[in-house]
Amino acid sequence: MGNPGDRVSLGETWSREVHPDIDSERHSPSFSVERLTNILDGGIPNTELRRRVESLIQHDPVFNLKHLYFMTRDELYEDAVQKRFHLEKLAWSLGWSEDGPERIYADRVLAGYNNLSLHGIAMNAIRSLGSDEQIAKWCQLGKNFQIITTYAQTELGHGTYLQGLETEATYDATTQEFVIHSPTLTSIKWWPGDLGRTVTHAVVLAQLICLGVRHGMHAFIVPIRSLENHTPLPGITVGDIGPKMGLENIDNGFLRLNHVRVPRENMLSRFAEVLPDGTYQRLGTPQSNYLGMLVTRVQLLYKGLLPSLQKACTIAVRYAVIRHQSRLRPSDPEAKILEYQTQQQKLLPQLAVSYALHFMAISLLQFFHSSYSDILKRDFSLLPELHALSTGMKAMFSDFCAQGTEICRRACGGHGYSKLSGLPTLVTQAIASCTYEGENTVLYLQVARFLMKSYLQAQVSPGSIPQKPLPQSVMYLATPKPARCPAQTAADFLCPEVYTTAWAYVSARLIRDAAQHTQTLVRSGVDQYDAWNQTSVIHLQAAKAHCYFISVRNFKEAVEKLDNEPEIQRVLQNLCDLYALNGILTNSGDFLHDGFLSGAQVDMARTAFLDLLPLIRKDAILLTDAFDFSDHCLNSALGCYDGHVYQRLFEWAQKSPANTQENPAYKKYIRPLMQSWRPKL
Amino acid sequence: MGNPGDRVSLGETWSREVHPDIDSERHSPSFSVERLTNILDGGIPNTELRRRVESLIQHDPVFNLKHLYFMTRDELYEDAVQKRFHLEKLAWSLGWSEDGPERIYADRVLAGYNNLSLHGIAMNAIRSLGSDEQIAKWCQLGKNFQIITTYAQTELGHGTYLQGLETEATYDATTQEFVIHSPTLTSIKWWPGDLGRTVTHAVVLAQLICLGVRHGMHAFIVPIRSLENHTPLPGITVGDIGPKMGLENIDNGFLRLNHVRVPRENMLSRFAEVLPDGTYQRLGTPQSNYLGMLVTRVQLLYKGLLPSLQKACTIAVRYAVIRHQSRLRPSDPEAKILEYQTQQQKLLPQLAVSYALHFMAISLLQFFHSSYSDILKRDFSLLPELHALSTGMKAMFSDFCAQGTEICRRACGGHGYSKLSGLPTLVTQAIASCTYEGENTVLYLQVARFLMKSYLQAQVSPGSIPQKPLPQSVMYLATPKPARCPAQTAADFLCPEVYTTAWAYVSARLIRDAAQHTQTLVRSGVDQYDAWNQTSVIHLQAAKAHCYFISVRNFKEAVEKLDNEPEIQRVLQNLCDLYALNGILTNSGDFLHDGFLSGAQVDMARTAFLDLLPLIRKDAILLTDAFDFSDHCLNSALGCYDGHVYQRLFEWAQKSPANTQENPAYKKYIRPLMQSWRPKL
Repeated sequence: MGNPGDRVSLGETWSREVHPDIDSERHSPSFSVERLTNILDGGIPNTELRRRVESLIQHDPVFNLKHLYFMTRDELYEDAVQKRFHLEKLAWSLGWSEDGPERIYADRVLAGYNNLSLHGIAMNAIRSLGSDEQIAKWCQLGKNFQIITTYAQTELGHGTYLQGLETEATYDATTQEFVIHSPTLTSIKWWPGDLGRTVTHAVVLAQLICLGVRHGMHAFIVPIRSLENHTPLPGITVGDIGPKMGLENIDNGFLRLNHVRVPRENMLSRFAEVLPDGTYQRLGTPQSNYLGMLVTRVQLLYKGLLPSLQKACTIAVRYAVIRHQSRLRPSDPEAKILEYQTQQQKLLPQLAVSYALHFMAISLLQFFHSSYSDILKRDFSLLPELHALSTGMKAMFSDFCAQGTEICRRACGGHGYSKLSGLPTLVTQAIASCTYEGENTVLYLQVARFLMKSYLQAQVSPGSIPQKPLPQSVMYLATPKPARCPAQTAADFLCPEVYTTAWAYVSARLIRDAAQHTQTLVRSGVDQYDAWNQTSVIHLQAAKAHCYFISVRNFKEAVEKLDNEPEIQRVLQNLCDLYALNGILTNSGDFLHDGFLSGAQVDMARTAFLDLLPLIRKDAILLTDAFDFSDHCLNSALGCYDGHVYQRLFEWAQKSPANTQENPAYKKYIRPLMQSWRPKL
Repeated sequence: MGNPGDRVSLGETWSREVHPDIDSERHSPSFSVERLTNILDGGIPNTELRRRVESLIQHDPVFNLKHLYFMTRDELYEDAVQKRFHLEKLAWSLGWSEDGPERIYADRVLAGYNNLSLHGIAMNAIRSLGSDEQIAKWCQLGKNFQIITTYAQTELGHGTYLQGLETEATYDATTQEFVIHSPTLTSIKWWPGDLGRTVTHAVVLAQLICLGVRHGMHAFIVPIRSLENHTPLPGITVGDIGPKMGLENIDNGFLRLNHVRVPRENMLSRFAEVLPDGTYQRLGTPQSNYLGMLVTRVQLLYKGLLPSLQKACTIAVRYAVIRHQSRLRPSDPEAKILEYQTQQQKLLPQLAVSYALHFMAISLLQFFHSSYSDILKRDFSLLPELHALSTGMKAMFSDFCAQGTEICRRACGGHGYSKLSGLPTLVTQAIASCTYEGENTVLYLQVARFLMKSYLQAQVSPGSIPQKPLPQSVMYLATPKPARCPAQTAADFLCPEVYTTAWAYVSARLIRDAAQHTQTLVRSGVDQYDAWNQTSVIHLQAAKAHCYFISVRNFKEAVEKLDNEPEIQRVLQNLCDLYALNGILTNSGDFLHDGFLSGAQVDMARTAFLDLLPLIRKDAILLTDAFDFSDHCLNSALGCYDGHVYQRLFEWAQKSPANTQENPAYKKYIRPLMQSWRPKL
């Protein structure tokens, strides 16, 4: 796999050599692509391991992805279950550990085409919320697939607002059981993955009622289907919620519970417990029950969201050096579309976002690993910051990936609308992530509350050290900043200090502006809740700026650390500059608002931005090659390593059932209509 | 149909009454919904006719749309052909004229679920480009469906740049035939709708070669399939291009021509002719061949694009008064999500866009009808302006509809991802339109060239009357404007004169800025083509601002004309204000750049904008009701008139084949895996 020649798809005669239009892009590279791949992987051993896993999967016919685009929903479901179980057998036979890197690498290749990811999320929830005995029991069963599990939280009428969930778990002390019940139509569990046709158990989130008192949402392990014959157990109504915009292989389901009884031991009890007599004991903060979601969100960034944008960039950039269109000047041949400034402006910022988010995800994972072990030991001091960072980044990553994959798709013109391009699948996966695991607007507003609190805390003792130190990620709110940007030329905007400070300034200003708007309303007599609602649009904007600032600063710091890799540092520096400047230009009003930037400075930033485009364009193919996606995994007629776009589109289209089966409409409708006129001819 | 009670879906017991949460929104309306519907329809007789057509369709079982979400691609194709032919028979039996309003109304209900729309486009092309004899012959055949036609322009390797099309039509004087040929893989015609499995003829765009000389692109009528048995004719390779992101019912196809001969008479010859000896005679401008596309684009706005956004608004706004989530204050019950400012900020601007685009489409259609008859008489004086307006509006409409339908979809949370919501279909239809009939970036750059020309023309004699008058739509470039916005309060931003002038100012400034950037580069020695490319991002921005300005001014003027409808004028004025201000706020950098607006004024505009939200929110349901879409046509579990969202989701989901068929994966994969562990238990 180390040899680029091996990346070329097998079995097609015209693919034995690389198309000259893409081959020329790889001549005389300005940096080592292999070295950049190693950096992205976190070291040479990781790259090697990843490639071994990918090679295994690529050469196993069960993991073939090529026919997916022609399958019905039913076929996709069956195929995805097969792939997942086949992967499990492979993992057992090779002794892959449950959360080891091999599975992450395998998921990267299979890209959501293997089902039962909710089984992992449910296991995470058990590990986060369960007692040690519960973890030992259920995670062992889950690991062996003696049970298959989902995480059942959202309801037909309730999503984001967990306190509003209606499902009830009423403790019956006489039998030491919980009675789990869906009291209304709107309380039917709706959306959990793998629930519709597959799982045997569900981690059900329900309102705990003990001795007539409600104690809020808790998690219960509920058997759903018979382990003997897979039929729904008594009291259970379960099924599939129907077709969706994407993720068609997954059987998202509904679940109606009619007074279903589970033993007392089935309530996950790391942070709260019900004693046999019905006494309720809280052992953690009320936030503890959200921990499962926190873990899921953090993992989602790197494993789920980032690859979708990286793949879309790879496909769109490769296509943009094969596709020729129009002439730059009348005497020229038609130009590669990547030569056009407007095309560069679409794709290269997405490439910059891909790298920015990569380094952001790595940092957040590090912070997560260092703080989460404390949290599990019930030290919650870092939880508010971890929560704010992970919610903010989940919202920003999914927003950017949704937007970026669609920009890449549209930048491929008509062919980007063909499923054979691979892009529609990436887009419909990415846009789903803006809603699941926390709707983005709601998440940004949670960040905004954290920011408002931090702002007020910084105000208590401005300039000096506050009594309780600010969380690290918002310390910049208390730092003095210049009132004007010092840049005097376009080149000044390529100084990381200049744009990082600009972002810090604007983010802090927007947070202050939002907080002050709320406070002004409260002072004028509006109650605090109305005041919050009437300024939430302003808070939303501030939260977004804060997240962008965090990612700019993080990218800057990550590039600085690459001192010993000067060529790679140079090319990543360009991307970091582009990322920061693109953000400034698309939000220029926020920078101009109080004169931090002048109009002339915005023009300088634009010049710097536009001048970066042709520079990065030279490295664009190499920068996508460095993601090291195999053709198998991209599964795209437009994005293969060898650049043979048109042959592939033509060959793949022939496989469409529409070309191999009879036309059902001809005899029934077309011929009768056309011939109805014959007598009159 | 006039009675709202009739709008409620039939046959479901719970739908006999309207949900109180939506019913209350319709109490004591501040304006007559029926009257607004009449205005949108262009008069009471149109409303009545539209409802008669809709009622006919709604009560005909062939036009049932309910099962579409569960169909495979093959089934969708068959169903859509059936619907179209059934509609044709209905039209014949009722004597609907070919371009009469009844068909437009029928298409509005069937919303792209009936195929063969390319047949109409091909007929338009023949009417635009054909001689009178050709029109008489081919349009008669087409009208009677003795032939079925498509318009075959784009190729596998060529789209936007028509001069680059490779298909050749070489004249053979010895037989007086054209030899139509695909010389390369990339020249295979790719994408034409209905080509894959259905049509008998294609209007093929090809490079005309006479006596060894190339004369550019011309249109030829080419028989594709046998009228006897529908098999491809000699020299023809034809098929389906495979699955797509949406529009799955349509058999977009490919067509490879191997020296296919057609008689000399098959070249459409209104604007150019080949004499028997091969002499080429041009009768129109070189632009004439683009006329077919122009007509298609203009028609697309009103018939194709606008309803997608209007429907998405209807669905999302109705759902937003049924869905309750979180509490505005702890003591309150959960609030309708439409009470949240962030939700209002998502949906209400889309409602404003829907109305803005409606009035824009009406104006453009009027301009088209008044100028197009001259063009057909070979008076091309208004062609450049008509071209610029129609391309710009096609780009803006499709951008806004793509963005707006997705905003509406995402504003419905998880349920917006379910196909049963109707929203995924609207989104995938809308995003396709950003690419077909002219890729939007390319179209905006055509507008930019027109603007640059107009700007230079206005410069020739600034202030005074230019020698050749500027086209009406760009006359504002030559009008003096104030250097600062005079607004002093938020209320001032509700003055249409204030924001229209602001938009005129900024659009003119961006056009000037773009032109000057290009000129500066040229003066510095960069050749004009490179200079254009290196400033195209700046020109793009200017073209977008120009289109927005045109639509703001048009909306303002349309509202002014409603003097005799004070209640409706008031509510539309709010929408017009919101439309203009939303555009200012999302592009505030352009307004702040040279101090036309100050930061304080942007804050005033924001206050005005935020204050409008709760005002419009009160009328939101009525404003969507006024579009008068029937439940049948919305085909949405979330968007029905009666508001019974959850019952419908639950009932519709039961119909999913996943719930009525056996699980294909259970016996094959799930049971074996789960039971593989039995012995060890």
